[in-house]
Amino acid sequence: MPSLSAQLTTSGPIDVALLDSRATTGFDGHKADAADAMAALGKELSDLQERLFAQARAEVGTRRVLLVMQGMDTSGKGGIIRHVAGLVDPQGLAITAFKKPTPEELEHDFLWRVERALPQAGEIGIFDRSHYEDVLIARVRELAPAGEIERRYEAINDFERSFVDGGGTLVKCFLHISPDDQKERLGERLDNPDKFWKYNPGDVDERLLWSDYAAAYNVALERCSTDTAPWHVVPSGRKWYRNWVVATLLAEALRSMDLQWPAADFDVDVEKARLAAS
Amino acid sequence: MPSLSAQLTTSGPIDVALLDSRATTGFDGHKADAADAMAALGKELSDLQERLFAQARAEVGTRRVLLVMQGMDTSGKGGIIRHVAGLVDPQGLAITAFKKPTPEELEHDFLWRVERALPQAGEIGIFDRSHYEDVLIARVRELAPAGEIERRYEAINDFERSFVDGGGTLVKCFLHISPDDQKERLGERLDNPDKFWKYNPGDVDERLLWSDYAAAYNVALERCSTDTAPWHVVPSGRKWYRNWVVATLLAEALRSMDLQWPAADFDVDVEKARLAAS
Repeated sequence: MPSLSAQLTTSGPIDVALLDSRATTGFDGHKADAADAMAALGKELSDLQERLFAQARAEVGTRRVLLVMQGMDTSGKGGIIRHVAGLVDPQGLAITAFKKPTPEELEHDFLWRVERALPQAGEIGIFDRSHYEDVLIARVRELAPAGEIERRYEAINDFERSFVDGGGTLVKCFLHISPDDQKERLGERLDNPDKFWKYNPGDVDERLLWSDYAAAYNVALERCSTDTAPWHVVPSGRKWYRNWVVATLLAEALRSMDLQWPAADFDVDVEKARLAAS
Repeated sequence: MPSLSAQLTTSGPIDVALLDSRATTGFDGHKADAADAMAALGKELSDLQERLFAQARAEVGTRRVLLVMQGMDTSGKGGIIRHVAGLVDPQGLAITAFKKPTPEELEHDFLWRVERALPQAGEIGIFDRSHYEDVLIARVRELAPAGEIERRYEAINDFERSFVDGGGTLVKCFLHISPDDQKERLGERLDNPDKFWKYNPGDVDERLLWSDYAAAYNVALERCSTDTAPWHVVPSGRKWYRNWVVATLLAEALRSMDLQWPAADFDVDVEKARLAAS
């Protein structure tokens, strides 16, 4: 059985408009089975995260994980933070939501703010949007010259390779929804006063450029899905499946690190005696 | 029925050595009842945290909360982050663990690093140790001249008042354990290889200064428990009770803010029409 990561990795040319957002690739069961699966994953993730954290604290490990999430508005980036990242000790998380760049950020290379937000050893970093905005909205809205956009794909690949070389593991997830999925979700926000705060009239402006965004995603997914840092396409029309996928991808990444509890860097018997005498 | 906050607030002279670390003040029931209580509190905290976050996002609120935790090693600061802070969306948390000051931090006033770590509007900040270290270990270990330590109590009160004036709410918790509680917990760390990483021989060095620390806590609790930012003494010999207390204190603080969902700052019908046409 191939890993879920292998099943969802994209390589080569892709057209996201042709993908089924409601697929449940790799999940054996129905929605009702997802809750049990998530409870088990939550327990495992919590344990693995603590081992990762412990290794860094004991200075025996430099490993770190970075979950990168991209997707159209309402695709579920916030929901994943709440329901998946929320399964582990928040002490071990480093969450960054990337907004429109500030004037200070614009004075630097596009990767400047991203480098500063990378997780430290032992942490699980989470990017709600990321450096990919600089080849997505930046391409669609022509926020930079074409030559500069063109330069960025390889710059991203170099940057990600360097993160991996330093002990990092990247889990990149494109949360795929269809225009109809989005229409339904934006509609829910407009129907519920307790969700008004999540709605922004600008969301419809971006929605009107759906095909342009899809084209920009096609380029980014093709050019930046590498062996060291593959892109996963996560069908995100069903929230329960989307959450299960991201939890599973994180668990697969952490399992592959064979995270052992650090050995004592002190003499246990000596310390027991000191404690007893204290 | 007075709030739990009122029941646990300390004012005036105090001698922490005389307190019962295994008290369960304000909890109606036994350990077995705590799990249900925590599940209910988790749901409520999650809702309140989202409202706090929504208000800031919609730019209608500047409120923020800061949980300050102090206590001897093993008193449960990390456990509270995992089990209480872990109940809410990690997106809305700003967690800082204060370690031994760096050379850069030592070049500034003791409050410099603390100001930089304060939660933004809409966030729940969590301090695992805090500016109180500068009147606790700094006093016990004479890390600053006596006159400077003396100056800090009022500086802390001014600083906290300013935080509250800016829309902040402070929840300050002294996690009280006895020397025996600590001995048992350090012993567990030495008995379990998967807890070695949490043990540090320096913990016993500090333990040998227990009375000095207790004296330093007595001064800090008396001088810095104010009307705007009271100190709570949290009996922390029972972990389940300690977690329930901190969850309850946070819930009481958030409830008192009367957090309503922000109104729409757009015309809902216009947006429904735009969405339908898109």
